Amino acid sequence: MQTELSGQLGIERAVFGFTPFPAVAAAISRAGGFGVLGAVRYTAPDDLRRDLDWLDAHTGGRPYGLDVVMPAKKVEGVSEADVEAMIPEGHRRFVRDTLAAHGVPELADGEASGWRITGWMEQVARTQLDVALDYPIRLLANALGSPPADVVARAHDRDVLVAALAGSARHARKHQEAGIDIVVAQGYEAGGHTGEIATMVLTPEIVDAVDPLPVLAAGGIGSGRQVAAALTLGAQGVWLGSLWLTTTEADLHSSALTRKLLAAGSGDTVRSRALTGKPARQLRTAWTDAWDDPAGPGTLPMPLQGLLVAEALSRIQKYEAEPLLGTPVGQIVGRMTAERGVQEVLDDLTRGFEEAVDRINRIAGRSGPS
Amino acid sequence: MQTELSGQLGIERAVFGFTPFPAVAAAISRAGGFGVLGAVRYTAPDDLRRDLDWLDAHTGGRPYGLDVVMPAKKVEGVSEADVEAMIPEGHRRFVRDTLAAHGVPELADGEASGWRITGWMEQVARTQLDVALDYPIRLLANALGSPPADVVARAHDRDVLVAALAGSARHARKHQEAGIDIVVAQGYEAGGHTGEIATMVLTPEIVDAVDPLPVLAAGGIGSGRQVAAALTLGAQGVWLGSLWLTTTEADLHSSALTRKLLAAGSGDTVRSRALTGKPARQLRTAWTDAWDDPAGPGTLPMPLQGLLVAEALSRIQKYEAEPLLGTPVGQIVGRMTAERGVQEVLDDLTRGFEEAVDRINRIAGRSGPS
Repeated sequence: MQTELSGQLGIERAVFGFTPFPAVAAAISRAGGFGVLGAVRYTAPDDLRRDLDWLDAHTGGRPYGLDVVMPAKKVEGVSEADVEAMIPEGHRRFVRDTLAAHGVPELADGEASGWRITGWMEQVARTQLDVALDYPIRLLANALGSPPADVVARAHDRDVLVAALAGSARHARKHQEAGIDIVVAQGYEAGGHTGEIATMVLTPEIVDAVDPLPVLAAGGIGSGRQVAAALTLGAQGVWLGSLWLTTTEADLHSSALTRKLLAAGSGDTVRSRALTGKPARQLRTAWTDAWDDPAGPGTLPMPLQGLLVAEALSRIQKYEAEPLLGTPVGQIVGRMTAERGVQEVLDDLTRGFEEAVDRINRIAGRSGPS
Repeated sequence: MQTELSGQLGIERAVFGFTPFPAVAAAISRAGGFGVLGAVRYTAPDDLRRDLDWLDAHTGGRPYGLDVVMPAKKVEGVSEADVEAMIPEGHRRFVRDTLAAHGVPELADGEASGWRITGWMEQVARTQLDVALDYPIRLLANALGSPPADVVARAHDRDVLVAALAGSARHARKHQEAGIDIVVAQGYEAGGHTGEIATMVLTPEIVDAVDPLPVLAAGGIGSGRQVAAALTLGAQGVWLGSLWLTTTEADLHSSALTRKLLAAGSGDTVRSRALTGKPARQLRTAWTDAWDDPAGPGTLPMPLQGLLVAEALSRIQKYEAEPLLGTPVGQIVGRMTAERGVQEVLDDLTRGFEEAVDRINRIAGRSGPS
């Protein structure tokens, strides 16, 4: 499974794995894929440094990357406290009432919320970047919008490829104009922030729009057949996030959440603004239902919604409030039915890919192994 | 491009084309695909007979099929007038006001509404079926739910294969239990009635769920790469509807609508209840916006919505009220940028398919033509 891009990066399989867990990222790279660590959770530079130290020591010398969330538009002189002050009291009350209705306990005094999303804010993302560029990362991905020009320049100075996620051909062309090297075409069925256009339509559209830039397909990919389909559509690799959540190397800090993921079908996700204020696909839960209910107060715009719900999500996770417990995940969750190791997942993808190629060759009437 | 199913039907390419236009259906079959005429518009049996006579005479002896809309659940003793009486006056006023706001003239006295959707009603669909079974159709497709048992039996008595559309694995298994022969997996990105699950996820899910029944993939397919991807996912063929709307053989009765289709991008459709009361993907227009506006009265359930808007749609179409003018169409509308003949469309699909197979073989490291 070799494309121009996988050859350039020196990896054996054109499978890019995005994950918040260093152990998963390391295992993906060790198994011949390309592990990409999500940095959004790291608000303290030392925490990121510690995990990058570990990651760098455990990839067996294989390449890996980092994913940050850096808005191209700068909001000057706005602190987290300023943003907090913009949240209406009625919304805070709705959070308290919803948690109380499900009997979710408070955090202990002084206990920090483990689930901060201030990584969305530019000053935090820039600190992450400063840390990351001390490491031999090969790829820097930006999950939201085009990265700022100086960031692209700094990455290129260090021979780091820059990728950015896009949900439309227009976004992808904007990224191209910003000088990035790889577009991740993120389809409607993907976990996390998505647009409305499905992978089957979006992938070739973006491939054509940014040619000759390489495109990775994201969304709806969790089997070798789907990897083969995405590459058939013109992608130079696949970008998988959801599939790793139920690997044995992942640490969701909640066996209840793992059970929910393993039980969920492809129809059990929803594209909701409940998490960040922008539409993001996630498990459908009593929590997303409450926010999406027309009778409720509705969600706030990014970044207010994320700040509003950060502590609540920590409490839901810590006390495993099952009806409310969720996570960003794509429609592919229906294929995640057993905990497996990363190596086994990648081997299955490769085997399924080869079988799918056999199949399409038979349909095309080409000779080949069958 | 040969699968078990295309071999069984004796067609050269595993491309099934659904269309309301006999000239398009005939051209698809003549060009080696499989043309399927949509019957929902035919409320008068003689009209259907006239068009099937023509179709049968113009396929050059190649096989073709018919698509009806037949609910499995029977509503006994309910007439169209009974259903009409259930429509609230406020909704009728909203229709009148919306048309008036855009200056759409009334139909002339006695002028029939050309766009009736009473084909949704079972008695009409049964009449269509009685007509169709006088012709050597090879396939009977049902667009909404499983066909009734007696219909499946009558079709099988005449060696007619029965297909049904499904938007989830659960629906597909219900169809299988009803004794049908082919499942059309209709993804979120498709035109017309769709569920939430995208083609990339839905196709393999349904292939696995109903194995060994053959599955056709629908939704997001408008190029040879997409045909190849769908077959790679395990489908035994593709089911295309939108792509034919801008062929030279199609007759939309509105050059303004054709222009709108050619200009639309993949982001210019919406999944709305405005047309029938169930979510159906269509061009986004001022008309769908009005129905989807939370400030409006909202849509009525099927079949009320369809009856409510039937005359309005005729007026919008007849007077080419451009901001309101729409049609069911999938996200693939972004690839429909020029009027072309059906034969050329099919030749392009085949050429693109072969190139995509070349590509995936290079990625898989298999020798082959390149």
